[in-house]
Amino acid sequence: MTSSDLSTLAQQLRVDSVRAAAAAGSGHPTSSMSAADLMAVLMARHLHYDFDRPDHPGNDRFILSKGHASPLLYAAYKAAGALTDDELLTFRKEGSRLQGHPTPRALPWVEVATGSLGQGLPVGVGMALSGKRLERIPYRVWVLCGDSELAEGSVWEAAEHAGYEHLDNLTVIVDVNRLGQRGPTRHEWNLKAYADRFKAFDWHVVETDGHDVDAIDRAFQEAGSTAGQPTVILARTLKGRGVASIENREGLHGKPLPDAESAIEELGGVRDVRVEVRKPAAARTLHAERAGHLELPRHEVGEDIATRDAYGQALAALGTARGDVVALDGEVGDSTRTEYFAKEHPDRYFECYIAEQQLVASAVGMAARGWVPYASTFAAFLTRAHDFVRMAAISGAGINLVGSHAGVAIGEDGPSQMGLEDLAMFRAVHGSTVLYPCDAHQTGRLIAQMAELDGVRYLRTSRGNTPVIYGPGEEFPIGGSKVLRSSDADRLTLVAAGVTVHEALAAAELLETEGIPVRVIDLYSVKPVDRRTLREAATRTGCLVTVEDHREEGGLGDAVLDAFTDGGPVPRLVRLAVRTMPGSASPEEQLRAAGIDAQSIAAAARLLVEEGVVR
Amino acid sequence: MTSSDLSTLAQQLRVDSVRAAAAAGSGHPTSSMSAADLMAVLMARHLHYDFDRPDHPGNDRFILSKGHASPLLYAAYKAAGALTDDELLTFRKEGSRLQGHPTPRALPWVEVATGSLGQGLPVGVGMALSGKRLERIPYRVWVLCGDSELAEGSVWEAAEHAGYEHLDNLTVIVDVNRLGQRGPTRHEWNLKAYADRFKAFDWHVVETDGHDVDAIDRAFQEAGSTAGQPTVILARTLKGRGVASIENREGLHGKPLPDAESAIEELGGVRDVRVEVRKPAAARTLHAERAGHLELPRHEVGEDIATRDAYGQALAALGTARGDVVALDGEVGDSTRTEYFAKEHPDRYFECYIAEQQLVASAVGMAARGWVPYASTFAAFLTRAHDFVRMAAISGAGINLVGSHAGVAIGEDGPSQMGLEDLAMFRAVHGSTVLYPCDAHQTGRLIAQMAELDGVRYLRTSRGNTPVIYGPGEEFPIGGSKVLRSSDADRLTLVAAGVTVHEALAAAELLETEGIPVRVIDLYSVKPVDRRTLREAATRTGCLVTVEDHREEGGLGDAVLDAFTDGGPVPRLVRLAVRTMPGSASPEEQLRAAGIDAQSIAAAARLLVEEGVVR
Repeated sequence: MTSSDLSTLAQQLRVDSVRAAAAAGSGHPTSSMSAADLMAVLMARHLHYDFDRPDHPGNDRFILSKGHASPLLYAAYKAAGALTDDELLTFRKEGSRLQGHPTPRALPWVEVATGSLGQGLPVGVGMALSGKRLERIPYRVWVLCGDSELAEGSVWEAAEHAGYEHLDNLTVIVDVNRLGQRGPTRHEWNLKAYADRFKAFDWHVVETDGHDVDAIDRAFQEAGSTAGQPTVILARTLKGRGVASIENREGLHGKPLPDAESAIEELGGVRDVRVEVRKPAAARTLHAERAGHLELPRHEVGEDIATRDAYGQALAALGTARGDVVALDGEVGDSTRTEYFAKEHPDRYFECYIAEQQLVASAVGMAARGWVPYASTFAAFLTRAHDFVRMAAISGAGINLVGSHAGVAIGEDGPSQMGLEDLAMFRAVHGSTVLYPCDAHQTGRLIAQMAELDGVRYLRTSRGNTPVIYGPGEEFPIGGSKVLRSSDADRLTLVAAGVTVHEALAAAELLETEGIPVRVIDLYSVKPVDRRTLREAATRTGCLVTVEDHREEGGLGDAVLDAFTDGGPVPRLVRLAVRTMPGSASPEEQLRAAGIDAQSIAAAARLLVEEGVVR
Repeated sequence: MTSSDLSTLAQQLRVDSVRAAAAAGSGHPTSSMSAADLMAVLMARHLHYDFDRPDHPGNDRFILSKGHASPLLYAAYKAAGALTDDELLTFRKEGSRLQGHPTPRALPWVEVATGSLGQGLPVGVGMALSGKRLERIPYRVWVLCGDSELAEGSVWEAAEHAGYEHLDNLTVIVDVNRLGQRGPTRHEWNLKAYADRFKAFDWHVVETDGHDVDAIDRAFQEAGSTAGQPTVILARTLKGRGVASIENREGLHGKPLPDAESAIEELGGVRDVRVEVRKPAAARTLHAERAGHLELPRHEVGEDIATRDAYGQALAALGTARGDVVALDGEVGDSTRTEYFAKEHPDRYFECYIAEQQLVASAVGMAARGWVPYASTFAAFLTRAHDFVRMAAISGAGINLVGSHAGVAIGEDGPSQMGLEDLAMFRAVHGSTVLYPCDAHQTGRLIAQMAELDGVRYLRTSRGNTPVIYGPGEEFPIGGSKVLRSSDADRLTLVAAGVTVHEALAAAELLETEGIPVRVIDLYSVKPVDRRTLREAATRTGCLVTVEDHREEGGLGDAVLDAFTDGGPVPRLVRLAVRTMPGSASPEEQLRAAGIDAQSIAAAARLLVEEGVVR
């Protein structure tokens, strides 16, 4: 394509963006128009992509971080022959693949869901790391960002990570159109401000006129020939470029053009230019080999070992059995025990430092490239990455997240380090699986099964030692539970998970001596829950007492309700959970203060019996 | 104090840090020792603080962002005469004020809880903004950071904000001791790497030897005399400084010294040097005036108005009535409608751009200075600040967060913009209040009441218009609800909030015509819930059907259970909630697809009647 052809293609992308938004009655045409020349040059001259084979391992990756500019993306897909014009005009309609913000669940060429700003680059870093260190395929990752989103800290976490890792297979294009949603951005057209920041983070920087196709072409070439550093292309653009009455004007974000028809005319009318996107070179994936049989660590029943240790050991074993498992750490690998994996599989281990958003984003990027990532930090600090987890679910990304140091049971460090909201956070994630093991064998089995699940998988580990109560051959299906004690005379059922399983068992022993037999269920699968077993317990004992080292909202107590929301009878329910703000104290003192230790559980059960609440 | 005295004081701080951790059997003495000289010079020469009057408006603010170095902080308090040596040795014990990580709930001199890294600077920015733009008192905000935490994106959001706002009343001291928890930091002692980054964000940078008290003194002086820019002091230090066998060694993070006794000897033994911290100049607070009567906007019953509009208008009115109310925006003020406030009270309006962590952190910092902040963005994007909300609760900060664009009801924009997990997130926050109004008058009344509550207050608003159903004089107590329809013949109860109130009312009308009377409750107070009314409805109708534009986990359906967890009888429960991953569609189509529109609610009720589940 000549320069003139490129400009014509760009005008078509603008026209189609305007048309799509007009047909939808909503959308972001002005944000699409500013980046149309950038997109045209990329598609025609630099991207290597086989639209017929979106799973081609050699394909470049393109992430539209400014996801609201989806009309531009869909217009580009049309120009590449991947979409028809008819489908283009289904934009934002019910049932259409062309959603307001792109997602890979709807379209095979979309790498990752965007629409929450500041996430495209972090996920792109994960993909670039995969290309460079795992797949070792010379594809390029292109990320198109808006200027507004550079205010997000996640962008600078990612910039730091990419610079440090010398990701020269990563190119970021910033569409500096000066206008955010509600008005001018912080730095408007001060490209130097952005250049200084990226340079400081060890990036190669190119500044360009974002509407000069030859200059853009040179910028992309420069990015491609820059070794040892990622490149950012800072492109000065006009929001609404191409239609004089709306160019560079405030108050027009996220709205169809006021007069689409005349705008289309001004842009040269409807065209049907086709762009031939270059195919990638042949490449093969490297990650699929599985070495074979999984040999999980074995322990003696009664042995004391923390579930975080069991996690680290099981993950290392899983890494040996499966070549596609990778591990990521948030600079606490000695605490989460991912260090076991690091020692055995250093080539598949990624240190993300104290940057939890980048930690999860890297996992999402690697999952999109076919890896099975396990990312770990303290459960409490995964809250830092909540929005990335939410978006991962929208992407349908298969990631494993493991949070250690759950609950008050960590002891002296105090509330800032205690994961007390993590079950609530992960239960509410669409399609998630939430697991909370109480012993080493259970942890190992669950960690292995997580690799095979869809969606976001979360497992919670504990800091302190707990006794091994299950044999090495025991199975723990997802959605299952274990009835640890039961008799026909049970007066109530204690439902516990993790550390509280051991407290519940001790409470049951105590109560037994007092003539109060109780059932004990280990509800290691918090989502999905084992409806059958819970219902059976409800029928037989009439009352469920949940015991959890977590806030009372959204955790185990609420999860139990999942078994009883079909309009059938609901048993009596009592929740023992963390209701106060803990301070520093020993693990034992913490459990007692929260009312979730064996004595407190027994006292609660006794009270229910005395008051005649239970049979 | 002479230089030699300063060094002696620093040695005492080290000794007391070692002693405190030894007495506790845990803690972070090595991280304290690296920063002891910095702390000694700050206390003796630069801090202005009245320990007898922690509420003195002229006090400087000191934030220990590396909260794990709490032994150093407590040792400094002891040196200032604020703590006894006996209390110092209660460190990390149950009931002690000296927690593993400092919190203002325990100690009056602590500004804000720390322990989740990367939060001290963002909160400090909020305080510095308050000092400069609201209080106009020349106090200085000092933040002591670790080097590891500079990997957090939130640090760079804050750096950007502080540079842009010219916060020359803010000084950050970075204790560059080269070692994180699990090993070397990314940049180790490469001070230039950090200097380049801060300079790029328009900071004044001073590099210094962090163990040379004269050099430190000069650096602090330079910070104090720098106008128009915040200053960062990059101090090269040794972790474990002062004890040869542990200095600069890996593997000693977060552990008492192996041989405390000989370490204390090497450090010169136990001392009792007292430091006279300078008192601040007299100052008066400016924010307390209340202009008087609150005049909330009034609407006609039946008028269509979005609760986000009602929020913006009510907030503007509240700002007129109360001089202590401030508003913060995440670059979406035109969508959240905080723009109403911006127009009327520009001096108390803060644009935080697309940086939700900084948005919430600014609110926390301002709340610590006595303001009543309302911070708003899309409900979905508040997940970005989850860890800041969690820490705000640990601080006991009184902040108001308002999330707009809740649920699938937003329509075409799709799931990335839909707040579907926000109720779960905020319910699990300790001591939180969670509100979800359905009409304009209710919104206004709740917004006004939020100002008077303790802890984290969250209110959820909707994008689309809904009819006004309550009169302007109606009261909506926190923890209350409204029974909108009821009769003695009710077959079941629909429990709704926000947009689903209107759907439930329409469903009830439909069912009425079919001879199925149902009760309708508007559960606008999601936490705390109205136990009395829910129990009454349970007793009278036997079955509660919750309807919510939220994921089924952790939201309204789980909240209803809060009324029934004391072991008493539990009614039959059915949850209607968002179970699928939405795409783009109109608001009406979205509600129908999620099964929470009037027709779906009626169908569910009909089924319960037909199947004989309800009476």
